[in-house]
Amino acid sequence: MLQFDLLKTDPTSHARRGALTLGHGVVQTPLFMPVGTYGTVKGVTPRSLHEMGAQIILGNTFHLWMRPGLDVLQGFGGLHGFEKWDKPILTDSGGFQVWSLGAMRRITEEGVHFASPVNGDRLFLSPELSMQIQTVLGSDVVMQLDECTPYETRGQLTTEGEARQSMEMSLRWARRSQAEFQRLNNPNALFGIVQGGMYENLRAESLAALVAMDFPGYAVGGVSVGEPKEEMLRVMAHTPHRLPAHKPRYLMGVGTPEDLLEGVAQGVDMFDCVMPTRNARNGTLFTRFGDLKIRNARHRADQQPLDSSCSCYACAGPSGVPWDQGGREGFSRAYLHHLDRCGEMLGPMLTTVHNLHYYLNLMREVRDALDAGEFAQLRARLRAERARGV
Amino acid sequence: MLQFDLLKTDPTSHARRGALTLGHGVVQTPLFMPVGTYGTVKGVTPRSLHEMGAQIILGNTFHLWMRPGLDVLQGFGGLHGFEKWDKPILTDSGGFQVWSLGAMRRITEEGVHFASPVNGDRLFLSPELSMQIQTVLGSDVVMQLDECTPYETRGQLTTEGEARQSMEMSLRWARRSQAEFQRLNNPNALFGIVQGGMYENLRAESLAALVAMDFPGYAVGGVSVGEPKEEMLRVMAHTPHRLPAHKPRYLMGVGTPEDLLEGVAQGVDMFDCVMPTRNARNGTLFTRFGDLKIRNARHRADQQPLDSSCSCYACAGPSGVPWDQGGREGFSRAYLHHLDRCGEMLGPMLTTVHNLHYYLNLMREVRDALDAGEFAQLRARLRAERARGV
Repeated sequence: MLQFDLLKTDPTSHARRGALTLGHGVVQTPLFMPVGTYGTVKGVTPRSLHEMGAQIILGNTFHLWMRPGLDVLQGFGGLHGFEKWDKPILTDSGGFQVWSLGAMRRITEEGVHFASPVNGDRLFLSPELSMQIQTVLGSDVVMQLDECTPYETRGQLTTEGEARQSMEMSLRWARRSQAEFQRLNNPNALFGIVQGGMYENLRAESLAALVAMDFPGYAVGGVSVGEPKEEMLRVMAHTPHRLPAHKPRYLMGVGTPEDLLEGVAQGVDMFDCVMPTRNARNGTLFTRFGDLKIRNARHRADQQPLDSSCSCYACAGPSGVPWDQGGREGFSRAYLHHLDRCGEMLGPMLTTVHNLHYYLNLMREVRDALDAGEFAQLRARLRAERARGV
Repeated sequence: MLQFDLLKTDPTSHARRGALTLGHGVVQTPLFMPVGTYGTVKGVTPRSLHEMGAQIILGNTFHLWMRPGLDVLQGFGGLHGFEKWDKPILTDSGGFQVWSLGAMRRITEEGVHFASPVNGDRLFLSPELSMQIQTVLGSDVVMQLDECTPYETRGQLTTEGEARQSMEMSLRWARRSQAEFQRLNNPNALFGIVQGGMYENLRAESLAALVAMDFPGYAVGGVSVGEPKEEMLRVMAHTPHRLPAHKPRYLMGVGTPEDLLEGVAQGVDMFDCVMPTRNARNGTLFTRFGDLKIRNARHRADQQPLDSSCSCYACAGPSGVPWDQGGREGFSRAYLHHLDRCGEMLGPMLTTVHNLHYYLNLMREVRDALDAGEFAQLRARLRAERARGV
């Protein structure tokens, strides 16, 4: 099931505030989805995700198909039961991961032939199989199988002709995905994905064809695939606001906090990205006043938390009272620096909590500002603060 | 400060129930202390330790001296502030870790010369310096510097003569530790450590000399150093119950759940061991019905939690209702097997919670049984259950 209620629109941009009802509950948009590739958002418990205000998480169909395998997931009635997450889940189609295998895969009209990275088995992923797998997973939002048009291949930019071929095949796969999804009587929601590379005319064609197919929601794909930032911003400025206003819009795999603000302004409702979790493990932390590298020796004796305005467990401890408000229960930069230096697991555990909290809280602030009719002000303030430096 | 109240003694063994008041609060004995070598119990947050009922944790003086270093710890007013743990902390003397450096160290009457494993610096640890470091750490329980008498060296069992030399030096170091501890006006409690290798006569001598020095508590050291299990049990049967009844007794570095039960029966009040945390990371889980290897393929699709009677977060989820009582919020063996196979951080996070909860809960059951005068029955039941197999 899927119902999208558009609650408010921003007069200064394409930004909108909505509520999206899915099989496992209602989520408030705009929102950010933490990525849980293998049935776990790396380094955090489901309880911690609940506490941070995560409303919906992502799973990767390809990875879960490989491990633990469909028979195991079926035994648990799907991914929710397996990973003990009872709120909504969105899964990708597996297409992007198969595509990322490079020389290990061969794409045909029928689907993608590839060798399993786990055991070398010869496998085949088609739009139909992707729908079957995502039906077993019980995903609240299912994504069509698409071909992710590359930005360049071996240094050669993708030509318009190549991008058209790829986009048109994705459209045929969209039809096959939709037909199989219906045949399976899947009660959840299937999203179509706009492709077309960096060519606006192709994106417009893709969009029109997908809108004609009447999906309950739409994604913008093929961004964050190695293109320069200006190119990404150009696609972000083109596609989202042209999608049907009464349906949810999902920008796949984007991005930095600044990208999310820009995406919201362009009319995007849903985001996912590995950046908060991956950067946390690499010691790059998002804060209100810019990014912080915890490995830098200057943090060695610093008693401040990562972000003195942050109420996450890492910065404010169990009470959640930020340093700026007199809270002194949080963990210091010195401690996090020490944990990183010693390779202690608690390091990435705490930094992951912080980065995810940062992203989830950013979107909470965006929603509150949209509710209050103050999105333009919030956007200007957040940008200025982030540019200040930590 | 230290006050030990002996609340009850078991008529069927040397087991006793006590309450130990330390600088950071009262702890109930017998108890188990999770090991937090580098200022973190590997893989768990302080909040999680609180929730599991940890009363006191251990820190390793040598490691913390190396990293983050005393200047950093001093800035935080000690280890409690640095690692955000506000209950009691016991620290070892650093002697065992320096001793473990093997060829990298040289032991003299004055102290131990060694090369820093972090940067190769030539360093020196004496009883006086150990007291100074532990004073900076602000440990509630400080341990004397001792020499850990090895069980064997290059295949040669330690002779009585060697064990005597070592034990007598440890006694001289005990006197120097005590003098320095007093000179520093350290307000906390210093424990003496009984040595003497596997020789009961030497242990009796060590014990008598330490008792004459009137420490507020005593440890049994030099066990769990590679000796056969029967030798360890022989020392455990000899030393603890001969220590002063009105003072706390700490058996260092022991052991399995069965060892803990035996230790309690022999009159031990305090235990520490890396086994629950280390085994968790290696996939060996303690359960009521024996040990379970989560890497075993037979768990691949098993929907049961690790221990169907367990109320930890891993086995029973946020509600804490065990599987046996109808709870279905816990994580399955299949899920934990999958996380381990995928190298996901949540795997060791959940298994560490389980193993620590198992140890802490075991000691809670022991205390309850002692309170109820049913220790002998509990001991027999737990042993039979553990021997059943999972």
